[in-house]
Amino acid sequence: MEAEIIDNDLEILSPEMVRKMNAYWRAANYLSVGQIYLYDNPLLKEPLKLDHVKPLVVGHWGTTPGQNFIYVHLNRIIKKYDLDMFYISGPGHGGPAIVGNVYLEGSWSDIYPNVTQDEAGLKKLFKQFSFPGGISSHVAPTTPGSIHEGGELGYSLSHAFGAAFDNPGLIVACVVGDGEAETGPLATAWHSNKFLNPVTDGAVLPILHLNGYKISNPTILARIEHEELDQFYRGCGWTPYFVEGDDPETMHILMAEAVEKAVVEILEIQSGSSGTTGRPRWPMIILRSPKGWTGPKEVDGVPNEGTFNSHQVPILVDADHPQHVQQLENWMRSYKPEELFDENGALLAELKELAPTGDRRMGSNPHTNGGMLLHNLHMPDFRNHAVDVVVPGGIMGQDTMVLGNFIRDITKANQSEHNFRVFGPDETISNLLGAVFEVTNRQWEARQETNDQFLAPRGEVLDSMLSEHQCQGWLEGYLLTGRHGIFNSYEAFIRIVDSMFSQHAKWLKVTSELPWRRDIASLNYLLASHVWQQDHNGFTHQDPGFMDHVINKKADIVRVYLPPDANCLLSIMDHCLRSRHYVNVVVAGKHALPQWLDMQSAIIHCTEGIGIWQWASNDQDGKPDVVMACAGDTPTLELLAAVSILREHLPELKIRVVNVVDLMKLQSESEHPHGMSDLDYDSIFTKNKHIIFNFHGYPWLIHRLTYRRANRNLHVRGYKEEGTITTPFDLRVQNEIDRFNLVIDVIDRLPELGSKGAYLKQQLKDKLIEHKIYVNQHGKDMPEILNWKWIAG
Amino acid sequence: MEAEIIDNDLEILSPEMVRKMNAYWRAANYLSVGQIYLYDNPLLKEPLKLDHVKPLVVGHWGTTPGQNFIYVHLNRIIKKYDLDMFYISGPGHGGPAIVGNVYLEGSWSDIYPNVTQDEAGLKKLFKQFSFPGGISSHVAPTTPGSIHEGGELGYSLSHAFGAAFDNPGLIVACVVGDGEAETGPLATAWHSNKFLNPVTDGAVLPILHLNGYKISNPTILARIEHEELDQFYRGCGWTPYFVEGDDPETMHILMAEAVEKAVVEILEIQSGSSGTTGRPRWPMIILRSPKGWTGPKEVDGVPNEGTFNSHQVPILVDADHPQHVQQLENWMRSYKPEELFDENGALLAELKELAPTGDRRMGSNPHTNGGMLLHNLHMPDFRNHAVDVVVPGGIMGQDTMVLGNFIRDITKANQSEHNFRVFGPDETISNLLGAVFEVTNRQWEARQETNDQFLAPRGEVLDSMLSEHQCQGWLEGYLLTGRHGIFNSYEAFIRIVDSMFSQHAKWLKVTSELPWRRDIASLNYLLASHVWQQDHNGFTHQDPGFMDHVINKKADIVRVYLPPDANCLLSIMDHCLRSRHYVNVVVAGKHALPQWLDMQSAIIHCTEGIGIWQWASNDQDGKPDVVMACAGDTPTLELLAAVSILREHLPELKIRVVNVVDLMKLQSESEHPHGMSDLDYDSIFTKNKHIIFNFHGYPWLIHRLTYRRANRNLHVRGYKEEGTITTPFDLRVQNEIDRFNLVIDVIDRLPELGSKGAYLKQQLKDKLIEHKIYVNQHGKDMPEILNWKWIAG
Repeated sequence: MEAEIIDNDLEILSPEMVRKMNAYWRAANYLSVGQIYLYDNPLLKEPLKLDHVKPLVVGHWGTTPGQNFIYVHLNRIIKKYDLDMFYISGPGHGGPAIVGNVYLEGSWSDIYPNVTQDEAGLKKLFKQFSFPGGISSHVAPTTPGSIHEGGELGYSLSHAFGAAFDNPGLIVACVVGDGEAETGPLATAWHSNKFLNPVTDGAVLPILHLNGYKISNPTILARIEHEELDQFYRGCGWTPYFVEGDDPETMHILMAEAVEKAVVEILEIQSGSSGTTGRPRWPMIILRSPKGWTGPKEVDGVPNEGTFNSHQVPILVDADHPQHVQQLENWMRSYKPEELFDENGALLAELKELAPTGDRRMGSNPHTNGGMLLHNLHMPDFRNHAVDVVVPGGIMGQDTMVLGNFIRDITKANQSEHNFRVFGPDETISNLLGAVFEVTNRQWEARQETNDQFLAPRGEVLDSMLSEHQCQGWLEGYLLTGRHGIFNSYEAFIRIVDSMFSQHAKWLKVTSELPWRRDIASLNYLLASHVWQQDHNGFTHQDPGFMDHVINKKADIVRVYLPPDANCLLSIMDHCLRSRHYVNVVVAGKHALPQWLDMQSAIIHCTEGIGIWQWASNDQDGKPDVVMACAGDTPTLELLAAVSILREHLPELKIRVVNVVDLMKLQSESEHPHGMSDLDYDSIFTKNKHIIFNFHGYPWLIHRLTYRRANRNLHVRGYKEEGTITTPFDLRVQNEIDRFNLVIDVIDRLPELGSKGAYLKQQLKDKLIEHKIYVNQHGKDMPEILNWKWIAG
Repeated sequence: MEAEIIDNDLEILSPEMVRKMNAYWRAANYLSVGQIYLYDNPLLKEPLKLDHVKPLVVGHWGTTPGQNFIYVHLNRIIKKYDLDMFYISGPGHGGPAIVGNVYLEGSWSDIYPNVTQDEAGLKKLFKQFSFPGGISSHVAPTTPGSIHEGGELGYSLSHAFGAAFDNPGLIVACVVGDGEAETGPLATAWHSNKFLNPVTDGAVLPILHLNGYKISNPTILARIEHEELDQFYRGCGWTPYFVEGDDPETMHILMAEAVEKAVVEILEIQSGSSGTTGRPRWPMIILRSPKGWTGPKEVDGVPNEGTFNSHQVPILVDADHPQHVQQLENWMRSYKPEELFDENGALLAELKELAPTGDRRMGSNPHTNGGMLLHNLHMPDFRNHAVDVVVPGGIMGQDTMVLGNFIRDITKANQSEHNFRVFGPDETISNLLGAVFEVTNRQWEARQETNDQFLAPRGEVLDSMLSEHQCQGWLEGYLLTGRHGIFNSYEAFIRIVDSMFSQHAKWLKVTSELPWRRDIASLNYLLASHVWQQDHNGFTHQDPGFMDHVINKKADIVRVYLPPDANCLLSIMDHCLRSRHYVNVVVAGKHALPQWLDMQSAIIHCTEGIGIWQWASNDQDGKPDVVMACAGDTPTLELLAAVSILREHLPELKIRVVNVVDLMKLQSESEHPHGMSDLDYDSIFTKNKHIIFNFHGYPWLIHRLTYRRANRNLHVRGYKEEGTITTPFDLRVQNEIDRFNLVIDVIDRLPELGSKGAYLKQQLKDKLIEHKIYVNQHGKDMPEILNWKWIAG
């Protein structure tokens, strides 16, 4: 199948315009090489000497000239149609290109006024690149106009779509590297076009940059047949336009035509004038240009331009290679800087006018500093959804189902603002958040059939793609451009995006240190269908370790919550959705469990983040014999059941019950802003009494968080990778977080309980055996366990 | 473009064969429904009663009949061509299908003789499914014939290719679910066909099962146009054959033709008789059949077959729905069990003979129990590559470059066995393992061009795809079928496969508990280009948290090593490659660093896993004032530099230097097989002296591992998410693992050092400032730091 032929009679670029655009491109290339190499002599006003070169030259050239080429062409089309467009640089190391271009258009100097539009500014621009204390070799948070860091690869297209949702006037130009295109997340992201509404959303214009090589290997997409590549993209639902070659003048004409064609098609699709019905086949551009284009043809006899040898620094310039100084100078002079910059180092006016101005400059597009556009959500009163808890444990509730009603109301309250969305990998209903479908739908542009549920071309829920990577990437793009959202996932499979979370947390950390970057809305995870509720899915669905992962990131950024019941979950989620610039991890269950706190108590408890549950404790004299602590819904249930056994059989034992909602409270105040002082910690946990801590996740996390505390008598139970297909209670038994084992833990640690304790222990061991037999025979838990109820002391 | 037309004159199935195959399929469907529902009355010899149904019915029906359909057709083709073929079940919950089929063919009873081929056996087969103590709803390690667990989705195709590499006689039939196909890893795995050699590797036959729905959403691939789907797969390099419909008889004929066509093409490609040159376009099958095919058309007036409502249990059978018992019975009787099984419950002989026998049965294929086929690697003597360390620190070395020579030799020594491969995401050369290309190449079947390096149609290195997911999936498939390998990656980006590692570790844990599953070779990670060697890549490339993640898994399975120099790295890697059924994580650097141990000392040190470095210590009287410990190459360098400062300036201070290679040594012996006793730990670390521990990763990991130890005076330095583009030493300073901050740590903790200590501290603080100024000015570290050398005490 042939690529569609572009009408060559349509002369888009006059020869004069070709000349100017090529000059602009040369200027960008010159600035890119300058950034990689030069410490001084930025305009080459004197012959280049080794002293002018940085002592340690690092950076990446290969992708850079192609991205400079794209940038100048996007500038043209923005001006022509007054487009609201910004640029996502997918290839890893496009820093010199984007930094150079946002400098040329003036955005860099607007943000960093010390880097002026003159020779002194050029010198600073060059020096800061890949230099200690300076900026990195990728596009980074420091780069104006960027919402996407090159570094780890694979997320550019998901970010682009996330930015485009609910931004109908926006076109996100997304340059995808052909190396990056081999990653899993990018490979599936092409299908995001099945979710983009042409009227209520913006557009994404992918530009696949086929420069042929990765670090030292060719790329797959550059080495399949032209017809295959065309089929691949048509199969992904795109209309590809090819721009292929290496002659600059020809390529400018081809690229201008392709960009024109693509943008006109986008505008036609959006206006409904394209004449097509059904899901549009959005245009995309495939740019095949040499890696390291316009760089040295060869270095020391080895081919460079057009090969993987141009990936990083093409010419090694140091004292051992004096002849390379001359080659570098020749290369830089090949761009004829004297024809591009005036005597003072400012870009010539006739070139400067090629760039858009003000907010239309891609480096100054407000969407790329999303906090500037961020509005608070309209938050309905979560207390309207309160579970009516008259006595603790007196009523059962399904926590995420209760939350679902609140999320429905939030969705509705913000519907006219188009700034709140729910993301998930087809688990919204499984996680019991289906109430949201009372007020909205799943956004879905592909074919519909009878019996489909809640599908519509426009809706606030994006949960129809089975890819945690897409959910995360879309949500990140949505948040980074100033909106709000929530990602609901099975707890175990959120590990799929460990690395994406890590990169986002790093982005938040760095942007929080940049005064011009405004805070964005927090990334909120709701991890439902958690480790203790996978009894029929089993071992593969059990992994509570995302919390461990999250806590390694900067304390300023991360928050982890384990609400014990529905009212606490409501209060926590209200807080999370109002917060800024955090990653909030909320773990909550969907199965019916006893509810503990009335709404007022829940609010107080969640505000404190940790608390002694007096109603469950009997140490009112303030001198407990043992502290029994818990975090997480299932561990809380079992702990309270254990307490009730202890209070019935060993009433003289003074027990203090502590529940932890906000995990960061356990850390020292020196380590986390939420951390408790040692005084407060000791007043809750005592300095030396035994603490039995029943935890939702891997037990070591609690040890780690409390490492600096004085009380070393801490015994943590949690998930220890045991159990698969079994009953809910048996899973707890296998991991020893169940009530019986907890009581035994207490007895084992308090020899003063003597024979009474020993007797109870034996009874409970018998009970465990009895239960095991019952389960194996009946396939369900014993009724007395299912029906257990807390009786207020 | 049209799907290729299959010649309908080719009558592959006689009407009699259609009848028999359909009967076999009915038997498999019957067994599947029985597994999901029945506790008793397996042959429906009496009318079904509620008592015969499991008290808690869980399981997944939707994908099952389609997979049963595929299985019977693969059986036919195996018999016809005497194929060596096995089955990978990608869709999440295909358990009832595969278990039913391996039972029908006899493989299940061979492995589990208590589940006999009669009514009693059927009852056991039914009861065990999704029942406490039984088997899970996915295909799992317990399932004979499986190397792939349904659960987390997305890895089936990568596993299939991993199994096919170097297995020229094998065809891996890989059923890919259309939900699974939306995940990133699966989406990019289609391109694995650019790496499969038709002569020296086996083949993969993907069967995309388009059953249209996920949990409650349609699937994307089922809702794009037929032409798009065809283009997509042709664009991915496959030749798709479509089998679409719902009438069983027609579908049997279509499927038989498609399978025939595909297998014949595979055999032609492999024999070179296909007439094509260049990269083959391997065949694949797209099976579009209704979800929950042959299940109830509707339940309680709601459509079921062909909708997402059939995903899990179609009919809720319990005391509240008495009429559903009858509907279930009708459904089961629709398969006419009395025509399929004899009076005793054995499958009729005329059906039994449809299945292959012996090792040709997919449930008994030896490749699926890879440990049975595993041979030890020929291991050349790693000592041949020893770095000649005459005095500690007297010579510089690049650890991974030294290892590269050893890996080259291993590759060569096993080349004729075709059982060892190196995997990586285009980082083999960057990680300095390029020596391997002296003896082999990168396997690459796509187009080659001038200036490519080390590409060939056959080679032991698979590092030309930029996807950690593929590397991991391929390697897992390769190991699971009884071979050996190593995965080299940047340390930060191995987090991309956190979740895959987790699933593999779970597989290893469960298979180690199944006596019939043989141990396989360990999964060896070499994490090179680590956190401390990303000074020019910066913040995005810094994440040492994979260790934290790994250590949460079962202690029997995981090992983490931090060799301090090249000789230790050689010794550790030799050990890892000889080991079985572990996940070994080895972190090693590539930059030139001082070498500490001669080979003999390195072997002893690595065998111990931890040791006091007497040559660096001055507490020979056995009474140190402070213990200075380290793990990792860079922390070791800085710690020794700190020790040398202390010994020069405060010679009266008695210092013990400890190096940890095997991180698990720090744990208690009760928690890890490598763990030290408290006695041993205390004898190394003392019971109460201050320990300054300089660690490669996040400091909390050391706190966590040593939590139970008596000595609480432990101060850990490590990576704390600081620093980006800067010099190597400045990065250490920013995270306070540098020599100066370590000395200050010691002084701060030992007030007895008095004014002498205070004076040194002030000097070092001045030095830190001086260094910072130097770096900002010169862009590199001060020469005295670069040139520092350990002087033996």
